[in-house]
Amino acid sequence: MIVRSPPVEGQLTSLARLVDRALERFLPPATRLPARLHEAMRYSVFGGGKRLRPALAILACEALGGTRAAALPAACALEIIHTYSLIHDDLPSMDDDDFRRGRPSCHRAFDEATAILAGDALQATAFGTIARHVRRPAIAAALVAELADAAGSEGMVGGQVLDIAGSSRSDEDSLERIHRMKTAAMFRGAARMGAISAGAPAAAVNRLGIFGERLGLAFQIVDDILDVSGTAGELGKTPGKDTAQDKATYPALFGVEASRRRAESLMREALKAVSSLGTKAKPLIRLAEFIVGRTR
Amino acid sequence: MIVRSPPVEGQLTSLARLVDRALERFLPPATRLPARLHEAMRYSVFGGGKRLRPALAILACEALGGTRAAALPAACALEIIHTYSLIHDDLPSMDDDDFRRGRPSCHRAFDEATAILAGDALQATAFGTIARHVRRPAIAAALVAELADAAGSEGMVGGQVLDIAGSSRSDEDSLERIHRMKTAAMFRGAARMGAISAGAPAAAVNRLGIFGERLGLAFQIVDDILDVSGTAGELGKTPGKDTAQDKATYPALFGVEASRRRAESLMREALKAVSSLGTKAKPLIRLAEFIVGRTR
Repeated sequence: MIVRSPPVEGQLTSLARLVDRALERFLPPATRLPARLHEAMRYSVFGGGKRLRPALAILACEALGGTRAAALPAACALEIIHTYSLIHDDLPSMDDDDFRRGRPSCHRAFDEATAILAGDALQATAFGTIARHVRRPAIAAALVAELADAAGSEGMVGGQVLDIAGSSRSDEDSLERIHRMKTAAMFRGAARMGAISAGAPAAAVNRLGIFGERLGLAFQIVDDILDVSGTAGELGKTPGKDTAQDKATYPALFGVEASRRRAESLMREALKAVSSLGTKAKPLIRLAEFIVGRTR
Repeated sequence: MIVRSPPVEGQLTSLARLVDRALERFLPPATRLPARLHEAMRYSVFGGGKRLRPALAILACEALGGTRAAALPAACALEIIHTYSLIHDDLPSMDDDDFRRGRPSCHRAFDEATAILAGDALQATAFGTIARHVRRPAIAAALVAELADAAGSEGMVGGQVLDIAGSSRSDEDSLERIHRMKTAAMFRGAARMGAISAGAPAAAVNRLGIFGERLGLAFQIVDDILDVSGTAGELGKTPGKDTAQDKATYPALFGVEASRRRAESLMREALKAVSSLGTKAKPLIRLAEFIVGRTR
């Protein structure tokens, strides 16, 4: 019997729904004191994200024999961290963006102090979600360590610092370092955390980590291409920001065509990293193809 | 033979030195990329804090039969979280304070974006420190859950939101709620995390939690009294800020004398919570007496 796999967008939608239901459980209700803070946290978490990092964590967990449920705390923690980083990135002293996913950014919908504090509280919530909802303590501790590395000063936050400082005078190496820290560290962390949630051995966790990192680097290049070619309606945020802020991007340095080729080469490296999983890797590969092929 | 205990200030200094050495190990070196971020993190962490929360965690651990070494990851994580909260509290959109512990605050010494990101990275480092350096996974997971609660939207960050929003029109109940969340949650967390680090049973953890919470409430009242009566030299920060910002404080609502009586009454409740520990509680009691009796 041939079981046909659902189209990737349908699968992503169903994973996103699963993640949203779990987020609903893991986040404090908006009615609880301080209500304004909890509203701001939920405003940003439920702001129409594609839930790509959670999907990656869940599919990595399933590819290594774990259940979807086992991956949910890690998946939600990743999305909560990602959300806090977007809130802080949008602040006036950072990228100064008034819109995010087609709606006012958190500091515009609320105020700057509330946005900073909502981001801070979300970060604590992310780590607490893992500690409270992962059953096996050894897995919980490993997940917290992974997430701290992916999100911290040598991962996502470090990449944002380099991105802000970096502008213009970048070469390919320093650009890739920024991408590796700012974006790929969280994709790498997502894939590794999914594998850890499945109770996979270190070698499998490492292979998934390579898959996630290459995919994250490809994702960032595609994102930068879309920033050059997209419209505000398609993107849900202000297009051309990178150019206006004189940020170094792949398309700015090498043009759109060379950037596409680089993304495709990264994709091949990603697929190679999970080739030993055989057909079990199929959902991961479809996710990767969707991410690199997306138009918004 | 009577073993005389060292005076509390000497003990605090030696605990602070122990904590500083551990922080030195747990924080990324300032030379590591991104150097500016790691410099900002260390500038604030090694900015002359009294290390009260770490001392509370370590003494709680010892009182319940644990070693100092066992409490160090939790103690350092608490101080790292406390430091990030000070960096963010000082930001222009929050309390807008140019000085902290007698030196330029982080966003003045560096810049606003770096200060926000240094705070963000410190929070991740705090959770990572527990996950990487606590040997027993069950204790690590419990500590992460405690710290997330103490620092999160229903603890420290939630209290800061209420504090900013609250100003002027406060009564005693809402003021105590702000103190409970903004300050006492972290003291409670410190005492509980020390007990958890010792592997203590839930009943002992709860007793230490009450001790820490009452102590934290007393600490905040004393802090507000010092804000009214202190000088910049003594405080290392701008005195009279609370009055200038029209913040509700105990001395503003009830006067200095009634505030002192309230702090002493909280102290008695704190001591009662640990009375069953007998002489083992002595170092905790001396710490509490120092905190409530301090003049800066």
